[in-house]
Amino acid sequence: MTHVEHIGIAVKNLDQSIPLFEKLLNTECYKKEEVESEKVQTAFFRTGKTKIELLESLDDTGVIAQYIEKKGEGIHHIAFEVSDIRSEMKRLEGLGFKLINSLPMPGADNKMVCFLHPKTTGGLLVELCMENKI
Amino acid sequence: MTHVEHIGIAVKNLDQSIPLFEKLLNTECYKKEEVESEKVQTAFFRTGKTKIELLESLDDTGVIAQYIEKKGEGIHHIAFEVSDIRSEMKRLEGLGFKLINSLPMPGADNKMVCFLHPKTTGGLLVELCMENKI
Repeated sequence: MTHVEHIGIAVKNLDQSIPLFEKLLNTECYKKEEVESEKVQTAFFRTGKTKIELLESLDDTGVIAQYIEKKGEGIHHIAFEVSDIRSEMKRLEGLGFKLINSLPMPGADNKMVCFLHPKTTGGLLVELCMENKI
Repeated sequence: MTHVEHIGIAVKNLDQSIPLFEKLLNTECYKKEEVESEKVQTAFFRTGKTKIELLESLDDTGVIAQYIEKKGEGIHHIAFEVSDIRSEMKRLEGLGFKLINSLPMPGADNKMVCFLHPKTTGGLLVELCMENKI
């Protein structure tokens, strides 16, 4: 894992949260992107090498809607950049971590991603991500 | 805010969580430090420019114990490095963010820190931190 690529934050309403985070981080949102497979609309901000990714659920049944229902708005996951996602998945699985995705899948911002199950990471939702070179 | 300086993660038991995060992050814990004012024992890992800080409460009444009681183990706060903490506190207060600390206070890892109230940051506990040059 080379660095923290982004921190995902669950929000109820991007229209309210984008101006709030622009003020907080003192930088403008540089991209909005829908990830249909995850039922989320995302918004990105840069802070050094780590992006802040706001996540709003596209409907009431998505994972972000469920998360907010249970825990309220706040930090949803941490994503670590890796240089070889398949070998990192293999390394972690060999150590007993449970992968949510058996294969890398397309994520936001041109990444291939894989999530680890929070039950095996002390409650933390961890994402591995690698630039999609295809 | 120059970058994400660290991510604070609330854990019940460092003796269990340190080996878990060493395996997850593929790096060794490089420091443990008690912060008496916050009633926590901390443990640090490096991943690029961002540290992962595990936090275990020193007793049942500390903020980390209360957090775990309410929300379970998981991400507790994000800390952003700033070049001038007093001017950043002034900027944020002027924009309507509520500061938990009216003055910078000593934090772990030789930092001066200030927390922002989650009620004004969309549920996020945000820490500003600056290298303590004294």
